[in-house]
Amino acid sequence: MNYRIIAYIVGWVFNLQAIFMVLPCIAAVIYQEEELYDFLIPIILCLVIGLFLTRKKPRNKVFYIKDGCVTVALSWIVLSISGALPFIISGSIPHPIDAVFETVSGFTTTGSSILTDVEILPHSIIFWRSFTHWIGGMGVLVFLLSLLPLTGGYHMNLMRAESPGPSVSKLVPKVQQTAKILYTIYFGMTILQILLLLLGRMPLFDALCITFGSAGTGGFGIKNDSMGSYSTYCQVITTIFMIAFGVNFSAYYLILTKKFKQAFSIEEVRWYLGIIAVSIVIIAINTRHFFSGIGTAVQQAAFQVGSIITTTGYSSTDFNQWPTLSKAVLVLLMFIGACAGSTGGGIKVSRILLLCKAAHKELQLYLHPNAVKKIKMDKKPISHEILRSTNIFLSVYLTIFAVSILIVAIDNYDLVSTFTAVATTLNNIGPGLEIAGPLGNFSSFSYLSKSVMIFDMLAGRLEIFPLLLLFFRGTWKKF
Amino acid sequence: MNYRIIAYIVGWVFNLQAIFMVLPCIAAVIYQEEELYDFLIPIILCLVIGLFLTRKKPRNKVFYIKDGCVTVALSWIVLSISGALPFIISGSIPHPIDAVFETVSGFTTTGSSILTDVEILPHSIIFWRSFTHWIGGMGVLVFLLSLLPLTGGYHMNLMRAESPGPSVSKLVPKVQQTAKILYTIYFGMTILQILLLLLGRMPLFDALCITFGSAGTGGFGIKNDSMGSYSTYCQVITTIFMIAFGVNFSAYYLILTKKFKQAFSIEEVRWYLGIIAVSIVIIAINTRHFFSGIGTAVQQAAFQVGSIITTTGYSSTDFNQWPTLSKAVLVLLMFIGACAGSTGGGIKVSRILLLCKAAHKELQLYLHPNAVKKIKMDKKPISHEILRSTNIFLSVYLTIFAVSILIVAIDNYDLVSTFTAVATTLNNIGPGLEIAGPLGNFSSFSYLSKSVMIFDMLAGRLEIFPLLLLFFRGTWKKF
Repeated sequence: MNYRIIAYIVGWVFNLQAIFMVLPCIAAVIYQEEELYDFLIPIILCLVIGLFLTRKKPRNKVFYIKDGCVTVALSWIVLSISGALPFIISGSIPHPIDAVFETVSGFTTTGSSILTDVEILPHSIIFWRSFTHWIGGMGVLVFLLSLLPLTGGYHMNLMRAESPGPSVSKLVPKVQQTAKILYTIYFGMTILQILLLLLGRMPLFDALCITFGSAGTGGFGIKNDSMGSYSTYCQVITTIFMIAFGVNFSAYYLILTKKFKQAFSIEEVRWYLGIIAVSIVIIAINTRHFFSGIGTAVQQAAFQVGSIITTTGYSSTDFNQWPTLSKAVLVLLMFIGACAGSTGGGIKVSRILLLCKAAHKELQLYLHPNAVKKIKMDKKPISHEILRSTNIFLSVYLTIFAVSILIVAIDNYDLVSTFTAVATTLNNIGPGLEIAGPLGNFSSFSYLSKSVMIFDMLAGRLEIFPLLLLFFRGTWKKF
Repeated sequence: MNYRIIAYIVGWVFNLQAIFMVLPCIAAVIYQEEELYDFLIPIILCLVIGLFLTRKKPRNKVFYIKDGCVTVALSWIVLSISGALPFIISGSIPHPIDAVFETVSGFTTTGSSILTDVEILPHSIIFWRSFTHWIGGMGVLVFLLSLLPLTGGYHMNLMRAESPGPSVSKLVPKVQQTAKILYTIYFGMTILQILLLLLGRMPLFDALCITFGSAGTGGFGIKNDSMGSYSTYCQVITTIFMIAFGVNFSAYYLILTKKFKQAFSIEEVRWYLGIIAVSIVIIAINTRHFFSGIGTAVQQAAFQVGSIITTTGYSSTDFNQWPTLSKAVLVLLMFIGACAGSTGGGIKVSRILLLCKAAHKELQLYLHPNAVKKIKMDKKPISHEILRSTNIFLSVYLTIFAVSILIVAIDNYDLVSTFTAVATTLNNIGPGLEIAGPLGNFSSFSYLSKSVMIFDMLAGRLEIFPLLLLFFRGTWKKF
């Protein structure tokens, strides 16, 4: 393990965190809130640690995938704990576990909240809460990569550990260049959504926070009814952008470089849009008597489907009241998740696709036991390693899911609340059903359950293995 | 595809079915019930078709795994439909889909019932219903193997398609001999349980039916409260035998041949017993205030855990009233299931073990990317094929699970009923929770949902692939 480099990069994460926190300070100044000082203390603390750790560049550049995983996991823990300080110091969320829950929920773009009343919070705190979504969406280390003049083999290993999906595709040969392109797309789409929301007469503050939530596929609302009280126009814009941020960003790069045909032939994106379309149709038909007309039903179905499959988690209506079929569709979408290479969570459409293709191949093997056939994705053969780790991802994922349910079940809430609370945190979505439903929140769960869900949110965002490695004895052994 | 041999073996299944139905006829004679004639019609029908199909032995002996799968799937469909005839003709279950549901539930050893009142049925009908469990438990084609003087390569391919678990282990070099040993153990344990239940003063008829249900890990009760009204002694005996029938039968063979050390070192069996022990402790502590003392709590926990993990499905108490933790444990046990090579259903302990070992290996690969390590089970390395098909089994299993939930959700029952009804049929258990709970039944589900569950029960018993092959275009293509 190359501790020097790990410390160096984590140091930079501290520095970045200090810079990030300047933005809510500006909000505090504008709204003349005294929470300004609650941000200054963590900023100074982060800078002191950060500057100490980054005071000189390490010389040993050997950096394996293992180091990449540990760096990413540690960085996210650092972000979560230092990011929780403003909540604790300002007294908005007094209990440390609650504060960390809320911060992790922010950075991992989950959007589950332990707050019972969001609207009484000061602007600067709400701004910071929503801004964590935007930071977490694209990943902090990918951001670091695009800024820092790091050289050596660690680019790919850092990006592989932080980026969602079964495999990382570089858009251009240089990893650093890829990171820059990704951030430019992310930034551009964010600006566009803010402008379109402003056109719909949404106040600037709301437009910023809502956009941060949909860009990062996070979903912290700034009103107690999430998105319910905004105009239909704003809901439609948000629906479109939620779905857009769940698309594999490679597609946008291809569009930008005018390779339209290639962009529209990405299998994952086609399936993703297909699943969304089918789900909207099923739910709209199933819930049509809840709304004034089929048009409203489609609009509401689209909002909820887009919100859940991309793991954003905004809600425009209380879908807890919907018929079982619609709820079952939403629960399944919770697990499917968005595209790899997007800001969304869940298992990811490409993994589901890979597993389906593998199953189809297995059936063919019953017919031709000796046939040799490669599984292909976008006409490229998939390596045996990716297939194996996809399969294993699924089983580890289910194990964590099962163990989490058992621990949260000790709280003795009903099975649906327990089940969906775990599903929604592990998949970084936000709301579940019943107690954890769109109009409920996570405040009533015990601190043990909240700690489990903090773990689940981080495991979901980092796709399990980097986080698990921290708890694996072999990682810390000397060889 | 070798249609001649497939027809020949299916013909023998018809003949066997006719012989099986002689037993309820004897019951009808003893209790002087006029249902005797309702059995004679299907017997004659089966014999006519059976004797026609088996009139001459096919010469072409080429028999691939594909033919094995198709034969097994067709045989089970034949058993289900012909076995449903007595229910329909006697008017005990007038609707054909209901009757097939009940018969499939019997043969697949599920034990889910659409009957609201079992106790009003004639003895011969109850006997036939329970006897289907005993037939289905060890598998019909394995039975056929041990009887028929078949030669050629099809033994292994038939057994592989019908036996539960990721791989089939032959106890002795000859498959036919293995089948004979398995049936002897099965028969011996059945007799022993009947004798022990008779010692507890259970009436002979009850002892036979209850034993058929636990030997096959089926779970059709013959009272409306399942096992609730029997004495503690009888419940304890049933608990022990349920758990015993869920053990990999290789262990018993090793014990019979005095290889005790080998028998007790089978990894799957140790984990199976470990999971049972831990679950009993958790549930007993969690439900202790429901019972008069911790002793009763342990006994009731053991009964329910044994019943659910072996996928038998008897109930001695209404666990639907238990706290969420206990219910969550039971729901997880539904998925784990019994050992491979036993009569139980579910995913199987050995598959879970394999998946855990694969995950552990994956973590190690993060540390040593170039290490070559084989996954071992009982100190023997596991082939890549078994691992791959285990992984794929899991994903196909989850897909069927998800699609079934969506269809059953159209009935608009609550999510827990919907979820557990599908889980309990796909895993061949019996009762679920809420509407499908231990005191409920499946009568209120729509015929569409019942048809889906019929498919799920067959898919669960045949471990998915043989049944899926029937619906796969490639199977019926000429090459």
